[in-house]
Amino acid sequence: MDPRKLEALLRSIQQGTLSVEEGVQKLRTLPFEDIGEAMIDHHRPLRKGFPEVIFGEGKDAQQVIRIMERMIEAQENILVTRLDEGKAKAIVRRFPQASYHPRAGTITIQVNEGEAAGKGIVLVISAGTSDIPVAEEAAVTAQIMGNRVETLYDVGVSGVHRLLNYREQLMEANVLIVVAGMEGALPSVVGGLVARPVIAVPTSVGYGTSFGGLAPLLAMLNSCASNVAVVNIDNGFGAGYIASLINR
Amino acid sequence: MDPRKLEALLRSIQQGTLSVEEGVQKLRTLPFEDIGEAMIDHHRPLRKGFPEVIFGEGKDAQQVIRIMERMIEAQENILVTRLDEGKAKAIVRRFPQASYHPRAGTITIQVNEGEAAGKGIVLVISAGTSDIPVAEEAAVTAQIMGNRVETLYDVGVSGVHRLLNYREQLMEANVLIVVAGMEGALPSVVGGLVARPVIAVPTSVGYGTSFGGLAPLLAMLNSCASNVAVVNIDNGFGAGYIASLINR
Amino acid sequence: MDPRKLEALLRSIQQGTLSVEEGVQKLRTLPFEDIGEAMIDHHRPLRKGFPEVIFGEGKDAQQVIRIMERMIEAQENILVTRLDEGKAKAIVRRFPQASYHPRAGTITIQVNEGEAAGKGIVLVISAGTSDIPVAEEAAVTAQIMGNRVETLYDVGVSGVHRLLNYREQLMEANVLIVVAGMEGALPSVVGGLVARPVIAVPTSVGYGTSFGGLAPLLAMLNSCASNVAVVNIDNGFGAGYIASLINR
Amino acid sequence: MDPRKLEALLRSIQQGTLSVEEGVQKLRTLPFEDIGEAMIDHHRPLRKGFPEVIFGEGKDAQQVIRIMERMIEAQENILVTRLDEGKAKAIVRRFPQASYHPRAGTITIQVNEGEAAGKGIVLVISAGTSDIPVAEEAAVTAQIMGNRVETLYDVGVSGVHRLLNYREQLMEANVLIVVAGMEGALPSVVGGLVARPVIAVPTSVGYGTSFGGLAPLLAMLNSCASNVAVVNIDNGFGAGYIASLINR
Amino acid sequence: MDPRKLEALLRSIQQGTLSVEEGVQKLRTLPFEDIGEAMIDHHRPLRKGFPEVIFGEGKDAQQVIRIMERMIEAQENILVTRLDEGKAKAIVRRFPQASYHPRAGTITIQVNEGEAAGKGIVLVISAGTSDIPVAEEAAVTAQIMGNRVETLYDVGVSGVHRLLNYREQLMEANVLIVVAGMEGALPSVVGGLVARPVIAVPTSVGYGTSFGGLAPLLAMLNSCASNVAVVNIDNGFGAGYIASLINR
Amino acid sequence: MDPRKLEALLRSIQQGTLSVEEGVQKLRTLPFEDIGEAMIDHHRPLRKGFPEVIFGEGKDAQQVIRIMERMIEAQENILVTRLDEGKAKAIVRRFPQASYHPRAGTITIQVNEGEAAGKGIVLVISAGTSDIPVAEEAAVTAQIMGNRVETLYDVGVSGVHRLLNYREQLMEANVLIVVAGMEGALPSVVGGLVARPVIAVPTSVGYGTSFGGLAPLLAMLNSCASNVAVVNIDNGFGAGYIASLINR
Amino acid sequence: MDPRKLEALLRSIQQGTLSVEEGVQKLRTLPFEDIGEAMIDHHRPLRKGFPEVIFGEGKDAQQVIRIMERMIEAQENILVTRLDEGKAKAIVRRFPQASYHPRAGTITIQVNEGEAAGKGIVLVISAGTSDIPVAEEAAVTAQIMGNRVETLYDVGVSGVHRLLNYREQLMEANVLIVVAGMEGALPSVVGGLVARPVIAVPTSVGYGTSFGGLAPLLAMLNSCASNVAVVNIDNGFGAGYIASLINR
Amino acid sequence: MDPRKLEALLRSIQQGTLSVEEGVQKLRTLPFEDIGEAMIDHHRPLRKGFPEVIFGEGKDAQQVIRIMERMIEAQENILVTRLDEGKAKAIVRRFPQASYHPRAGTITIQVNEGEAAGKGIVLVISAGTSDIPVAEEAAVTAQIMGNRVETLYDVGVSGVHRLLNYREQLMEANVLIVVAGMEGALPSVVGGLVARPVIAVPTSVGYGTSFGGLAPLLAMLNSCASNVAVVNIDNGFGAGYIASLINR
Repeated sequence: MDPRKLEALLRSIQQGTLSVEEGVQKLRTLPFEDIGEAMIDHHRPLRKGFPEVIFGEGKDAQQVIRIMERMIEAQENILVTRLDEGKAKAIVRRFPQASYHPRAGTITIQVNEGEAAGKGIVLVISAGTSDIPVAEEAAVTAQIMGNRVETLYDVGVSGVHRLLNYREQLMEANVLIVVAGMEGALPSVVGGLVARPVIAVPTSVGYGTSFGGLAPLLAMLNSCASNVAVVNIDNGFGAGYIASLINR
Repeated sequence: MDPRKLEALLRSIQQGTLSVEEGVQKLRTLPFEDIGEAMIDHHRPLRKGFPEVIFGEGKDAQQVIRIMERMIEAQENILVTRLDEGKAKAIVRRFPQASYHPRAGTITIQVNEGEAAGKGIVLVISAGTSDIPVAEEAAVTAQIMGNRVETLYDVGVSGVHRLLNYREQLMEANVLIVVAGMEGALPSVVGGLVARPVIAVPTSVGYGTSFGGLAPLLAMLNSCASNVAVVNIDNGFGAGYIASLINR
Repeated sequence: MDPRKLEALLRSIQQGTLSVEEGVQKLRTLPFEDIGEAMIDHHRPLRKGFPEVIFGEGKDAQQVIRIMERMIEAQENILVTRLDEGKAKAIVRRFPQASYHPRAGTITIQVNEGEAAGKGIVLVISAGTSDIPVAEEAAVTAQIMGNRVETLYDVGVSGVHRLLNYREQLMEANVLIVVAGMEGALPSVVGGLVARPVIAVPTSVGYGTSFGGLAPLLAMLNSCASNVAVVNIDNGFGAGYIASLINR
Repeated sequence: MDPRKLEALLRSIQQGTLSVEEGVQKLRTLPFEDIGEAMIDHHRPLRKGFPEVIFGEGKDAQQVIRIMERMIEAQENILVTRLDEGKAKAIVRRFPQASYHPRAGTITIQVNEGEAAGKGIVLVISAGTSDIPVAEEAAVTAQIMGNRVETLYDVGVSGVHRLLNYREQLMEANVLIVVAGMEGALPSVVGGLVARPVIAVPTSVGYGTSFGGLAPLLAMLNSCASNVAVVNIDNGFGAGYIASLINR
Repeated sequence: MDPRKLEALLRSIQQGTLSVEEGVQKLRTLPFEDIGEAMIDHHRPLRKGFPEVIFGEGKDAQQVIRIMERMIEAQENILVTRLDEGKAKAIVRRFPQASYHPRAGTITIQVNEGEAAGKGIVLVISAGTSDIPVAEEAAVTAQIMGNRVETLYDVGVSGVHRLLNYREQLMEANVLIVVAGMEGALPSVVGGLVARPVIAVPTSVGYGTSFGGLAPLLAMLNSCASNVAVVNIDNGFGAGYIASLINR
Repeated sequence: MDPRKLEALLRSIQQGTLSVEEGVQKLRTLPFEDIGEAMIDHHRPLRKGFPEVIFGEGKDAQQVIRIMERMIEAQENILVTRLDEGKAKAIVRRFPQASYHPRAGTITIQVNEGEAAGKGIVLVISAGTSDIPVAEEAAVTAQIMGNRVETLYDVGVSGVHRLLNYREQLMEANVLIVVAGMEGALPSVVGGLVARPVIAVPTSVGYGTSFGGLAPLLAMLNSCASNVAVVNIDNGFGAGYIASLINR
Repeated sequence: MDPRKLEALLRSIQQGTLSVEEGVQKLRTLPFEDIGEAMIDHHRPLRKGFPEVIFGEGKDAQQVIRIMERMIEAQENILVTRLDEGKAKAIVRRFPQASYHPRAGTITIQVNEGEAAGKGIVLVISAGTSDIPVAEEAAVTAQIMGNRVETLYDVGVSGVHRLLNYREQLMEANVLIVVAGMEGALPSVVGGLVARPVIAVPTSVGYGTSFGGLAPLLAMLNSCASNVAVVNIDNGFGAGYIASLINR
Repeated sequence: MDPRKLEALLRSIQQGTLSVEEGVQKLRTLPFEDIGEAMIDHHRPLRKGFPEVIFGEGKDAQQVIRIMERMIEAQENILVTRLDEGKAKAIVRRFPQASYHPRAGTITIQVNEGEAAGKGIVLVISAGTSDIPVAEEAAVTAQIMGNRVETLYDVGVSGVHRLLNYREQLMEANVLIVVAGMEGALPSVVGGLVARPVIAVPTSVGYGTSFGGLAPLLAMLNSCASNVAVVNIDNGFGAGYIASLINR
């Protein structure tokens, strides 16, 4: 669909160096392969700046390994999320070059280093200690996507002076990821202190009327700070991903 | 049910100064009267420390006036809430001694002054300017119940330095009422700054996923500050009422 | 931020007993330490009247013990909530001075006795027997915060005469905590009988349309008694905490 | 489908007094007529003990009148619900024999008096004055269905002694209809005081988290009294209807 | 509170056969005992026509047995609901006279037979086979409360001709309990076929948008048949209980 | 993307009858035009079998007329839905050839008659009289899309014998559209009687826990009849549209 | 109720070849049998075009086997859904002629082959690999109901070019079943590309605000493509069933 | 809190050029003024890169004008959102230099031009014509914050080829704002086509199960494209604001 490629292709037909049948074929063949269930899109690095990510939940270790094998042949960086310890160990046994991040529940394999370094710092903040696994998923994601990542944990709003102590660090970040459960107020307070985009991640931490993260989600969507956008509950990966794009 | 009164009553029967029939009658007659639809409980001041409150919504001016007339005979303080301007004016015409508080949408008549003065200051805080009507309803309620009331408006969490500027005022209050819509984060931040009870009032101010105040309500119920209790959405009256009891 | 401390600090600089650099440093150093994940705020007793509370759910026994060790050095009272029997036993083995309250699922260590005794009685009421664990969490919390605590269990509204039998006890309490699942009506009935603040705690006890405690929560927020404020579902700790502050 | 009628019909065919074609016709012709949009089922009195009811909401006065005209020809009792004053007056002008009940928003025409008198008293109780229109709809419905009806209004649970004053009246009723908005606790308290069935009607009276009557509905469904069953929000008619059947 | 008892009591005081102190005592002593956690109300049979019911869920076998022991001394009929097989067997070992109803998950002990027999038949209908446990809980409850009970299972609305086959049986019942999950339509269809009260019980059977029984609950509350009232999701006991009262 | 068209196009380039630039242009020009806000897709009839439909709600008469003018030039059939009487009259004044269907709130202009006649009958059924506007919207839609349409109104499940009377008509339909509010049970009953696809349309008719049509929607999604699929609340147009496709 | 059968029956009575009693009996005996809990309707194939389906969830292997045994005697095709591997193996041991489809969690026994072949292709599309079990349930259902079935998996909307690659296949299908979790957008995109009916199946795949499939369900109900109708969350069977009826 | 300013201040005290009292005062005076209800923070441009925004909803024209007058003195750029035509005209009469954007419902006054130009293009995309007001609010916001803004309207997913026609324009944008109601699928499709951040805005456009924008909100939060973050329903301003920060 790229007009220049299209023009070149049509010109080869005009010049007879490509047959009409080959032209039809080329125009219709998109560059992905079928490995049974899950199609892997090798053009994704070109289009999106990052290889396919494997969502580990609901897949067993063998399924994950099969997909990883194909990706490694293609010389791609790999991020596998939502792995419990059992699956993670089985995968690391198969791929000794893989790094396992237990708090984040992720595995990474960095084939191509140094690609697309982010411009500034991605700062990942968590309200409570229970929000850290989600925060770490965001941090690992941003790291493998080529960003300098800093973290600031356990600075929830019921002790707002703790947060204010780190005000300079907040001001220096280029993108901020703020992870919070319970009342989900931290992104609003952080958003009011900085002049950069804040990606808010509600967590399912809490009980009673938390309703699995609905309470902080609604709080974040209703933030009185205008520089806050929200991703799905517990979606640390998504926050790290979009923060990386913003940081380019 | 008061055992001393009961003892006295039984003793009169024993002594023959009260007939059995009168005794049965007395034991069964509770001190309230029926004025048709709405029963007014004159013992309420004794039991509860405050006269009956008239919820003005859904009643027309004439209905409100009829109830007020009976109350005034009984020499009671009166608070009428949820009045629009039209009804309020009709009522004030009838009772020139009444005070109309337009921002709060309430009318008060103070028959017995000085009763039951609160021990400390009730501080009413609002996050935004749109939360002020609810905050004023709370303030007027606390005032007529005999409290010193201070207000601090428009100090929402997206500019947390504004709030911190008033930290001393926060620390000096005995009870705090915090009124907020949108993400409802203010009670958590205030709760973390003070060592006194905070009554949180969610407001229906906001749009989209505020869902008529559900978002701040959930945030307040999930507050990470442990000194926060919550009343119903927009229930400024209830907040002022319970804050007054706490302040006694 | 305390103006008198600030004045003293500035005066030392004026008098040359403190260098400018030290002044900047002092003004920026807030008194909390970082022990890795969870920051412990030793100033909390000064600011809030009570030491840090450890929410045991989601932490393993070793994590709880590590945090407790640091706190004990700082000579602080400790309350650990939401502990199952296994964790509790491991903790008590490590700290023989700890008291385990099995019905409440809490552990307490009282280092400084007698602090900040409450003025009156905190009365904890439960509607059904299944609400007792939450009620006990509230009672233990109020107790370690220096209050005289009484309890009154299994007096739900479907047998309102049971409750009325205890009317005097109700009238004598300074603050009331009312714990109820199912239809959550008990706080409204109790609230109508007393002239003191009622903290209502909905529980997730019930089935079908209880929706994990949503039914009693809504009932309590919509209470026709004006002296009722509500905390989160099953949040016995929060109720005990705010009741203690009210009772001071 | 009545086997005796069926037998008689088949016997007429056997005996030749009815042709097969007439038999097919009779078996397939059910006794209702088509008057365009709304089919009126004249057999309803036989089957159900009461004539068709007209739900007035969403129909204009002329539509209601057209349906009533057909019913009156058929000598049926008529109940029209959910009428505002305008529609009601137009209908009464057309049918001077109709009775208009303004608080209930209903019109009744009693053609056949005295039918199917209920065995005992249907007692209609309301928690607040704002619940009265729904309570009246229930009372009028039970009345025209041949019951002795008593009412007891404004006895909500925040003043439970008011209700207890009427305990004898409660005990004497055969069926109780309890109408309540806000926290919806009244049916549970009443249900605990009597040994007869209680039909609970939640009303949309309330604000904030009442959510249009959801709060009292959930409370009533979760009642700890086992003799409570619930009808739809504001459904006074339905409550009066089923109470009448219970009372037969 | 019974006026005749009250009169007698006062007369004894007048006549000197009862001292004032004894009178105060008698008036204040309500007839229940405290066995620790759960108060048992022995007057319940008088007031309510049926002994205390033990809700087995969340209680272990020993707790249930302790409560039952006290009840048996008082010569009361007993119904224990929501028992899994393990608990049930332990209880039956202790009380060989107990009957265990495995499909209903209940245990009954009938001490006083023949009491308060219902006037007609209570017919329990279920839509699907998965609704049977709830239906059986209703049936056992109605049975021990002295009613003739019939059951009709697996007659859901997607095969409405099956139901119609039993039309006579439907018509002969005095009260009908209709248990249904999924779309919850069966009570509306049954309600349209009979002229007697229908108690509808939604079940949590279903998946996806059943939302744990919310779908059939809403359907039943919105029934276009006016002789339908609803109890809580899966509340077979409550349905059997109120049906028994209606049948008296 | 049609491979034959693509082949022809490439062949023209190969043969030099089309320049490369023209080829690029042709491949990228999709056949729709921009008339400002709303793009009209003239290829829609080819792709979808029916012209663009104008959703009238939220557009004023002039906006609708402007879009219609462009469509009429293109010789297309037109359906405008959700029109109140005022808008409808203004539109009919401008296009005298338009037919206005007041009960359905739609306008149709049939330019090309007789296209794509459906194979069988589309039968539109409504439960109550208040559901008729939605049912009519479905009927008009199916009619202008070339189907024979029959209607059967006011046959709700509380009088299931009415429905059964029309059983033959139900059996003869090729597709059935069943429109119902309240408990939304009719599609399940109809679905059990026929062996053809049933498109269920929940309506927002009802009150209380209907929650604007949520109750019948959930009932329909949980239907125990497997031949039922559902469209959005009040979406008569969508039901008529997909029924037409099924009927081809 | 079939008038011709009815006529024949009545004629036999008229002619004396059938007694009245037999007539009553025949008219009232519907052709299903009672095998205890679950009634099996052998007329279903005639009425509905397909034998009874056994919903395996909540039934143990023996219950399923008992029902299957009766069905096999009646020479009917059988589909058992929602079977885990353990149950499935037990069933296959009993019925060696049964086919087990592990990804779909279903078992089929095809007694009568070739019946009622569908006219065109039923194309089953899934958005992600996790949606495949639901998609397979739909595919197996459509297959045993006599349709040619094609599948197209893992073509979600975040890579819309993948889907477009299969555009021809989409255009050739007669009915499309589109299975999607997460944002549930695929049916809208597919619906916009084809001119045939699309049956959308939301899945409970996803996390956070997926709310067990509510998110894709709402998206599908609000589809801007008018040729989309929706079945319950995870209801692959229902989608395959109605698609089969459409394809006849 | 800026350490250099702090150092300078302390140094003046050390050097005696500032008294201790003045120091305390300066440290405590934050640079905002109180103009009654709404505090205006003049430091906001420094901190946040943009002046205060006035949310016009719920304020009358005079209130807006009063706030604007103070801002204009301070030489700040102004954005007023959510204005209906009446208010807008009154404001423009008072400030002839103001620009009114009727489709967006906003007024802007650009005092300081050329500030902080964005690096790339902000592309605002809407799914339907009814989403345009929200899209325009986003576009006007991004424009006054110094960005080049392009718009692409009416390219919803049911005609995905329309969108693909603009693929180059999508690829060239630095930040994309995607506004959609109904099924909210557009951000997922756009997100899959580009390698830049996508800010998704759900709108309340739709009916039935749209639930005021809840359906598209959930779809966007559950997007299978990882470069999508979400703001509140109808929050065009917030989307424009955060997109501007990303674009810097």
